[in-house]
Amino acid sequence: MLTVNAYAASSSDAPLEPVTITRRDLGPKDVLIEIKYSGICHSDIHTVRGEWGPIKHPLVVGHEIAGIVAEVGADVSRHAVGDRVGVGCMVNSCRECENCLASEEQYCLNGNTGTYGSVDADGTITQGGYSTHVVVDEDFVLRIPEALDLATAAPLLCAGITTYSPLRHWEAGPGKKVAVVGVGGLGHMAVKLAHAMGAEVTALSRSLSKKDDALRLGADHYFATGDPETFEKLKSSFDLIVNTVSAPIDLGAHLGLLRRNGTMVNVGAPAEPLPLRVFTLFSNRRSFAGSGIGGIRETQEMLDFCAEHGVSPDTELIDASYINEAWKRVLSSDVRYRFVIDAATFA
Amino acid sequence: MLTVNAYAASSSDAPLEPVTITRRDLGPKDVLIEIKYSGICHSDIHTVRGEWGPIKHPLVVGHEIAGIVAEVGADVSRHAVGDRVGVGCMVNSCRECENCLASEEQYCLNGNTGTYGSVDADGTITQGGYSTHVVVDEDFVLRIPEALDLATAAPLLCAGITTYSPLRHWEAGPGKKVAVVGVGGLGHMAVKLAHAMGAEVTALSRSLSKKDDALRLGADHYFATGDPETFEKLKSSFDLIVNTVSAPIDLGAHLGLLRRNGTMVNVGAPAEPLPLRVFTLFSNRRSFAGSGIGGIRETQEMLDFCAEHGVSPDTELIDASYINEAWKRVLSSDVRYRFVIDAATFA
Repeated sequence: MLTVNAYAASSSDAPLEPVTITRRDLGPKDVLIEIKYSGICHSDIHTVRGEWGPIKHPLVVGHEIAGIVAEVGADVSRHAVGDRVGVGCMVNSCRECENCLASEEQYCLNGNTGTYGSVDADGTITQGGYSTHVVVDEDFVLRIPEALDLATAAPLLCAGITTYSPLRHWEAGPGKKVAVVGVGGLGHMAVKLAHAMGAEVTALSRSLSKKDDALRLGADHYFATGDPETFEKLKSSFDLIVNTVSAPIDLGAHLGLLRRNGTMVNVGAPAEPLPLRVFTLFSNRRSFAGSGIGGIRETQEMLDFCAEHGVSPDTELIDASYINEAWKRVLSSDVRYRFVIDAATFA
Repeated sequence: MLTVNAYAASSSDAPLEPVTITRRDLGPKDVLIEIKYSGICHSDIHTVRGEWGPIKHPLVVGHEIAGIVAEVGADVSRHAVGDRVGVGCMVNSCRECENCLASEEQYCLNGNTGTYGSVDADGTITQGGYSTHVVVDEDFVLRIPEALDLATAAPLLCAGITTYSPLRHWEAGPGKKVAVVGVGGLGHMAVKLAHAMGAEVTALSRSLSKKDDALRLGADHYFATGDPETFEKLKSSFDLIVNTVSAPIDLGAHLGLLRRNGTMVNVGAPAEPLPLRVFTLFSNRRSFAGSGIGGIRETQEMLDFCAEHGVSPDTELIDASYINEAWKRVLSSDVRYRFVIDAATFA
């Protein structure tokens, strides 16, 4: 077993601080990754704070991991020492259910193994990427193309695939009108990716404060949802709306923006139920859907797409000692648009 | 103007009784139809009772019309005197919006003209099919194939197309698992049509009371939703669920029955908002959708499909004098599965 440095909180309301954890010895199919960069996702905070259910502290979070292969197990064929690699939100799945067999392990019917906070095959709790090293089955390790910077590639493993997958599934592309609700960590990636796919992109955010940014990121149009006129102006306009806002929104007003056969897909969601007037869905044969990250095959496709189209998130690189401050800023939406931790500073 | 016999209620809580109404003189594109049969739809009752908003009484309802062309306007080219024809829920639309141009007049962005209770081009209120004759623009008149019995064809104009359209849109067919929630006027058509399309059909109804019927109608399987085990047994099973129940249902439980990329589509809906936990949509990338009747082109396709596959509703033929009793029985779900009025008895 390898003892490595990490950051974790001792309780749901304690600050994160340096800890050491152990990583398992390499099995024949395992890859030891020296983590170079680790992104901060809002989910990390929800999880540690116990907002998504009770957890066992201390827990090392982080599921936007970019690094270099340091060692490989005897039977590893997909990765070699020195390779640039990434790990996202999953590190294993049942590999037997119909969803796994379709390379959609994110929807594993037996529950996939999360990068942190899940019960691993050996019965231990998985520990995430706020750390110097991680050991992962090679099938859940992604190749990061040379054209991508490692630091900015890290957030692609969650924020990137979470927005790429629904854009692809609902066929964002030339001739399609796509709206992105919320311009934050997920939303700014959705804007960039939808633009790179060739769609006509409208960014929707509460106020006009992010207008300049959104247009720079690739949006063709920008409207403030705080202005009720927006919902009149844009009625029956969009083929696809990607809602990246986790807070409750007025579903009816937003669904009314869909044109015929349009879909609004949530990639974030409040825990509490939202009221939905089903009649809103009748007009224009509208759909309301959800989407969670993406499969391993699609995640690789997304990384290759980003390399080819020069897409990467806007990031702010920080030291590990700044994590607690960064979390506060994430909670107040004061980041444009993703924090990435320099993993060298976990040492 | 033609004065014709009809049935209408003088107020929202009065019984229906014989009245006379006028039909407009034939315009160059109009068709005068001698109505032979008129189906009873639950919507008729909601409308007359004022449950879907205030209306002007007396109103003649009925939007499942089958009859014979009695006269045609000078420029009519699609229909001739003596033709077997039908009229459904719409008698006109703007013909200019993107939905009308796509032959999806049911989603007309300027609001289509309903067969009853809508403001017609001449400013009058449209009057429906509980009557001996109706005048309709030829573009909204359907051909009823010879292979279909006129009496049982009538309910196809609403119950048929309302279920056919979502089954087609979401590609019910061989290899697809389709569930139908509710075995009533709409539900029994959904079962028959999905079966005729080659899908594997599961009927879901509150109790086991309709099991024999549902299997006879073409269902491969039947489960009672009153039994909570049903939702465990059938979890993640269906590609498509057609919910024909207008009363509130447990959305989360039903959405949980969808497999990856599955859609639950409502063709009925309660007026009040339903609580929806969005997280339910994340698993299996589920969608919740609505669908309203179908376009004229698709309605014709549906009639031709029914003729080719020998699909027709189970009906109970009644005289006009029985309408009030029939309405009571519709409200208590005591009909298998659609009342059809013999229009000769309006005389």
